[in-house]
Amino acid sequence: MNTTSNIASPAVSLPLSVGFPQATPASTFPAPTSDYYQLDDLLTPEEKNLCHQIRKIMVEEVAPIMAEYWEKAEFPHHIIPKFGALGFAGGPIEGYGCKTIPTTACAVAYAEISRVDPSIGSSILVHSCLATLLIAQHGSDEQKQNYIPLLARLDIISTCGLTEPNYGSDASSAQTSATKVEGGWIINGQKRWMANCTFADIFVMSARNTETNQINGFILKKGAPGLMVTKIENKVALRIVQNGDVTFDNVFIPDEDKLPYLTTFQGFVEALSFARIMVAWVSIGVAMGVYDLCKRYVTERKQFGVPLAAFQLTQEKLVRMLGNIQAMFLTGWRLCKLHESGKMTTGHASMGKAWITLRARETVAVGRELLGGNGILTDFLVAKAFCDMEPIYSYEGTYEINCLITGREITGIASFKPPTMKKLSRL
Amino acid sequence: MNTTSNIASPAVSLPLSVGFPQATPASTFPAPTSDYYQLDDLLTPEEKNLCHQIRKIMVEEVAPIMAEYWEKAEFPHHIIPKFGALGFAGGPIEGYGCKTIPTTACAVAYAEISRVDPSIGSSILVHSCLATLLIAQHGSDEQKQNYIPLLARLDIISTCGLTEPNYGSDASSAQTSATKVEGGWIINGQKRWMANCTFADIFVMSARNTETNQINGFILKKGAPGLMVTKIENKVALRIVQNGDVTFDNVFIPDEDKLPYLTTFQGFVEALSFARIMVAWVSIGVAMGVYDLCKRYVTERKQFGVPLAAFQLTQEKLVRMLGNIQAMFLTGWRLCKLHESGKMTTGHASMGKAWITLRARETVAVGRELLGGNGILTDFLVAKAFCDMEPIYSYEGTYEINCLITGREITGIASFKPPTMKKLSRL
Amino acid sequence: MNTTSNIASPAVSLPLSVGFPQATPASTFPAPTSDYYQLDDLLTPEEKNLCHQIRKIMVEEVAPIMAEYWEKAEFPHHIIPKFGALGFAGGPIEGYGCKTIPTTACAVAYAEISRVDPSIGSSILVHSCLATLLIAQHGSDEQKQNYIPLLARLDIISTCGLTEPNYGSDASSAQTSATKVEGGWIINGQKRWMANCTFADIFVMSARNTETNQINGFILKKGAPGLMVTKIENKVALRIVQNGDVTFDNVFIPDEDKLPYLTTFQGFVEALSFARIMVAWVSIGVAMGVYDLCKRYVTERKQFGVPLAAFQLTQEKLVRMLGNIQAMFLTGWRLCKLHESGKMTTGHASMGKAWITLRARETVAVGRELLGGNGILTDFLVAKAFCDMEPIYSYEGTYEINCLITGREITGIASFKPPTMKKLSRL
Amino acid sequence: MNTTSNIASPAVSLPLSVGFPQATPASTFPAPTSDYYQLDDLLTPEEKNLCHQIRKIMVEEVAPIMAEYWEKAEFPHHIIPKFGALGFAGGPIEGYGCKTIPTTACAVAYAEISRVDPSIGSSILVHSCLATLLIAQHGSDEQKQNYIPLLARLDIISTCGLTEPNYGSDASSAQTSATKVEGGWIINGQKRWMANCTFADIFVMSARNTETNQINGFILKKGAPGLMVTKIENKVALRIVQNGDVTFDNVFIPDEDKLPYLTTFQGFVEALSFARIMVAWVSIGVAMGVYDLCKRYVTERKQFGVPLAAFQLTQEKLVRMLGNIQAMFLTGWRLCKLHESGKMTTGHASMGKAWITLRARETVAVGRELLGGNGILTDFLVAKAFCDMEPIYSYEGTYEINCLITGREITGIASFKPPTMKKLSRL
Repeated sequence: MNTTSNIASPAVSLPLSVGFPQATPASTFPAPTSDYYQLDDLLTPEEKNLCHQIRKIMVEEVAPIMAEYWEKAEFPHHIIPKFGALGFAGGPIEGYGCKTIPTTACAVAYAEISRVDPSIGSSILVHSCLATLLIAQHGSDEQKQNYIPLLARLDIISTCGLTEPNYGSDASSAQTSATKVEGGWIINGQKRWMANCTFADIFVMSARNTETNQINGFILKKGAPGLMVTKIENKVALRIVQNGDVTFDNVFIPDEDKLPYLTTFQGFVEALSFARIMVAWVSIGVAMGVYDLCKRYVTERKQFGVPLAAFQLTQEKLVRMLGNIQAMFLTGWRLCKLHESGKMTTGHASMGKAWITLRARETVAVGRELLGGNGILTDFLVAKAFCDMEPIYSYEGTYEINCLITGREITGIASFKPPTMKKLSRL
Repeated sequence: MNTTSNIASPAVSLPLSVGFPQATPASTFPAPTSDYYQLDDLLTPEEKNLCHQIRKIMVEEVAPIMAEYWEKAEFPHHIIPKFGALGFAGGPIEGYGCKTIPTTACAVAYAEISRVDPSIGSSILVHSCLATLLIAQHGSDEQKQNYIPLLARLDIISTCGLTEPNYGSDASSAQTSATKVEGGWIINGQKRWMANCTFADIFVMSARNTETNQINGFILKKGAPGLMVTKIENKVALRIVQNGDVTFDNVFIPDEDKLPYLTTFQGFVEALSFARIMVAWVSIGVAMGVYDLCKRYVTERKQFGVPLAAFQLTQEKLVRMLGNIQAMFLTGWRLCKLHESGKMTTGHASMGKAWITLRARETVAVGRELLGGNGILTDFLVAKAFCDMEPIYSYEGTYEINCLITGREITGIASFKPPTMKKLSRL
Repeated sequence: MNTTSNIASPAVSLPLSVGFPQATPASTFPAPTSDYYQLDDLLTPEEKNLCHQIRKIMVEEVAPIMAEYWEKAEFPHHIIPKFGALGFAGGPIEGYGCKTIPTTACAVAYAEISRVDPSIGSSILVHSCLATLLIAQHGSDEQKQNYIPLLARLDIISTCGLTEPNYGSDASSAQTSATKVEGGWIINGQKRWMANCTFADIFVMSARNTETNQINGFILKKGAPGLMVTKIENKVALRIVQNGDVTFDNVFIPDEDKLPYLTTFQGFVEALSFARIMVAWVSIGVAMGVYDLCKRYVTERKQFGVPLAAFQLTQEKLVRMLGNIQAMFLTGWRLCKLHESGKMTTGHASMGKAWITLRARETVAVGRELLGGNGILTDFLVAKAFCDMEPIYSYEGTYEINCLITGREITGIASFKPPTMKKLSRL
Repeated sequence: MNTTSNIASPAVSLPLSVGFPQATPASTFPAPTSDYYQLDDLLTPEEKNLCHQIRKIMVEEVAPIMAEYWEKAEFPHHIIPKFGALGFAGGPIEGYGCKTIPTTACAVAYAEISRVDPSIGSSILVHSCLATLLIAQHGSDEQKQNYIPLLARLDIISTCGLTEPNYGSDASSAQTSATKVEGGWIINGQKRWMANCTFADIFVMSARNTETNQINGFILKKGAPGLMVTKIENKVALRIVQNGDVTFDNVFIPDEDKLPYLTTFQGFVEALSFARIMVAWVSIGVAMGVYDLCKRYVTERKQFGVPLAAFQLTQEKLVRMLGNIQAMFLTGWRLCKLHESGKMTTGHASMGKAWITLRARETVAVGRELLGGNGILTDFLVAKAFCDMEPIYSYEGTYEINCLITGREITGIASFKPPTMKKLSRL
């Protein structure tokens, strides 16, 4: 008997279909099947057309490689020019080479991307809906002329940073400082989670003006002395997104790269709300993709002599998922219409993000159960989507923070902060 | 020491406000506050106007008395003419004195009624959306001329019965029989749960034609020999609805009262689907009313020196309820639009009813927690709504049956029936 | 055609079995079937014997009448002597005619009662675990001699009151006042929810000593001038419990009826914690009864040609309920053992009450679904249990308050009180 | 402006603490804090001692490296001898060099391992509770003499396989065949998910005897001609476990390696039930570890000027998790006691596995919310545990299958198989 066992023998590597031939993997991505209530009717021809263009890219270019890139935690840079060509990244911005895409069109585009892969969706979202939008809202005309055409075509990539290690939910208290010096500003501090930051050309960021004690906005170019980027490793989700910790050690930003109209934290709120709508739609896309995959899987996969789809416990799950998706879509659609008509409040966006991602999280967990063991392999999408939902549920404001933002709006009372630390009752 | 204690001393009866002055009871009903996403914009002026007329009746006439009628399990017959005058009960029927109210208008009307009291909503729903609609869909012109104008004005009240003691979810297998005799039909059997039946003027009902073995439809007038009605007592919910067990002991129905075009179970399905939309909207109304009451309550009620609305745990609940309500409304609205455009399937209606009532049930349970002890008193609405949601969740198809109906449509596989009773596996 | 329809015709009253012969009502109560993990083995012979004695009373005397009493919202006083004879009401008290029943025995006794009817359980609980226990813990020897033997035999009935209209969760701040006068104390204020108070012989109550500003304890005899009791009407739950609003208008309590050792709110906490254990067990009993009834029902009730028990969706629900019940029992049992060994903290009791009632509430809601339409009739128990669970979930500390009590113990930080009312962030 | 952006710049790699200094990572593993109800008192000194020995290994040897191995999806073979020395792997087997560890001791040992890493727990579990146990239960004395001492010391490692690509939940129908030939058996077919199989010395496996058409048991040595192992890649969970697809192409097994007493599928059931107990305890350990980490995290991590532990929404989550853990432990403990006393049924084990993993899954998801963004990094444990819970919830029988196994036992009706495929109703 050989007792020297604890040496791994080299395992043969074979295609998935050898090990599990019964169901089609997500590299052959299923067509959309979750539009049960014909919600497509609520979209314009332009919106539908944009979706179809995106769908083609995602299904043909991304689906076949995403399991590999997710596993390696790498970003498929070669995909970016395809999106650049669509002119979609300028979002709702007017002028400066942007197509001025309405809120609803942006929304369904993010869903369409994220149906296949929310990492791609999230990476573009940070670039477009935060960094680029902040420049458009608060930049000088010269800054807009310089940056937005490039950003809108994805010729250059941006990242955006408000969050700091000590200030996540409490981002308005962030401490990275900007001190006025001759010809510019000196930045010191640290940001965390900045998406795309390992390869971004420009960093749109907040820093506290040491004179006014207000949060100001800046554009920082990559390669600046004193700027250090550390990729965040060991993620279980959105592994294709390149998040980083960023430290600023006496980094100099010239005056021309300070955003002149972004001089308080309040200035960030409008873009944050817009981003929250889009994050909600990222989660809608994730839920759609999971439904599509699950529906195909339970039809293909047999146990006890019949497709899984024939079981009561399966059908109830499918219907629950499908009901959630219709409701998520409609809620997200209404949120877009409020935004387009100028009626959307901060509370509207926060509730939309909180509620929709809550239901997306629930939907994806139900889907994961439907796949049994194969529900832990990214090859069948659902495992990946299940993991990816977690940061989507938490970023751009956790569920709790967004609830409290809306709660403040509807009750008139802020409840973010807990009471002072002394004991208050002897219950 | 008096040891003969177990004799109840007469308790003094005082108004609620003496015992609990801190919060306004539901007899003074709060204005609607749940339309956070301005969903009102999706309605026509006519739809809004109908809502306002109904709201006035419900708030002024029903709210002050509903706790009392619910407690007594009695029906406030004097309210009915008010609704009759609105001409609302004819629903979408064309001609015969009906106003031909669109699906969406009917829907928001049921929500508006049920925001205050779903018993009233359910009683009218059975009359309008089942009994009256079946006559309109399957009656002869003479039957329509005779009955529909009276029914649409609520001058006469109808009940409708498919369910039997042994056939609830499995209503298509019901066994009450109709045997052809000279000049008419002899009915034998039993129905259960028939709403309004203790006072209804006409009974629209199914019975199995003993010749064709198909389910047929009949109109039976009250007082027919052999017809016996037993009120169902001891309900914990919808106590204002007068449900009954009805037995038919050789009851004669003349040929003229047989619905000529209702000759298979399939003939009932369209009306059932329409009713399912409306039941979904009953639950939307219930959830709205609960939110409205809770919102007022947590603002008025103080503990630890502040309104309950100031607590994190309260705000998260409010926002969850509010998010559910927006989503329920939008899902129900889309279902109406599908129906109005002729695109609605049976599966659409079943999923809408199942999903919306699932979320309504959840919403109402959250609301009940917010009221603490006062959440068990009908005076504060929420207790009543909490109870009333249960039959709404179960009638017109339980959650499970509606899921399986939709499940059949989306998978192509019926899973209602379990396997044969022998053991199938040795797991 | 008779158009004067809106007059209720008298409905014939018949036994339930005529209307619905398919399943046995709860008046014939099922034997216990939820002890799947043979938890009975954890009990002593004395504990099992007490359960059997109680079961006999509940099944034979209470089950046949409870639907009627619940409907009428009346208390079956004639049942009380049966429990008196068991000597169970003295609970763990030593001496003074009490049998000194261990915590676990009390617990399973309350479960056994509440399996059939938690109103009876709750009424005795307030008498035994609060009023009587407080006298035993904080009374003078003379008070104990006078009252406890009578209380333990249920020859006299007590109520207990801390809660006030403005002080529920915040009971330690209650404002009913006790002012020292010659020979006694003058009480002014108001209590709410006091169980049994419409017929109780003695009221054990808290009042704030105007000299010390501390909460003190008193015994008040019924019929005292200035004492007014108002029964709380319109409850949807525990309708057999006689709750009342009680007002004290210059009520005189002689010195001899002040509890000498109950001089701070802290003095109530030990009894409150004991009561919380027992309320948890009330909910365990409720869940057991619901399971027992559901299990019989799904075996008897057929649809689609087979018992409901044959459906996957039914079996998953049954197993989920059964799993919850094993876990609730074991958690409650462990809590008793901690109490018996003197190791139980306030946080232990609060978490036990919160967690167990959370799962009981969930279990009962699942059970309600299993009964479909019959799940809204008290005749089949589950409707009643579903309603009764709500106050059990909320009394002796809501779920939230109990979580925060435990939360304070495990984190060292009190979070009952929200922050001050100014806005704190601009998220 | 540099427009050639889409090239990743090399990110600097730094320790986690640079990027996020606020909270301690799981490489410094927290001491256990979830034993709120002093459940430790239910264990024997031997059981506690075994836990402490395991804890030391896990905290000192595994915690510092697990994020790295999980990321790389590799197995830390060097850890195995540490467990071998404990003599724990023989589990409850009597003789053959085993320490005959009682069920409860095995259970708490798996929890202790899995508190830190359930991949290690699962790998040993498959080796000990399935492969080794099956040999002990069904092997010849010679086989036991040859293999068990080595297996019990982990000198050789085993894998076990019943599941096939087409037979997961329906494992009793598996089709891998064993055909009798001169001197042995020829195996053809395929297994899936076999843990440890890339490096295991022996494969304990099922195959269908082509003569009897019954499932038989075999021992197959690694390196046998025709045996091919493919590691399953792209897992999002239990990445340290080396699962594989295994194909058998005319693999010869000599007669001496056929398990003589494992001649029907029923023969596997006892070991499967034992393994289900242990899998339940793996999930208990996971939940404990998550609680421990979360508790430390919310104490260390501050927002809005206070520790997260000071927020109501945090405290409720902590208490819900803690309540679940007490209940899971007690339910698992009771299951062990039933097993030790010979009273445990298949249904007991299945319900225990289903219910406990259901609550563990819920607990871990709550914990993930508490960590916000850091909840997606394996460095803080919770992300890893959140992912790892999914296969634990699904392996050794999905939640649904285990519910139906118990459902069959308590109702007497098997409901695994859906109805025949024709449509059955026209609801």
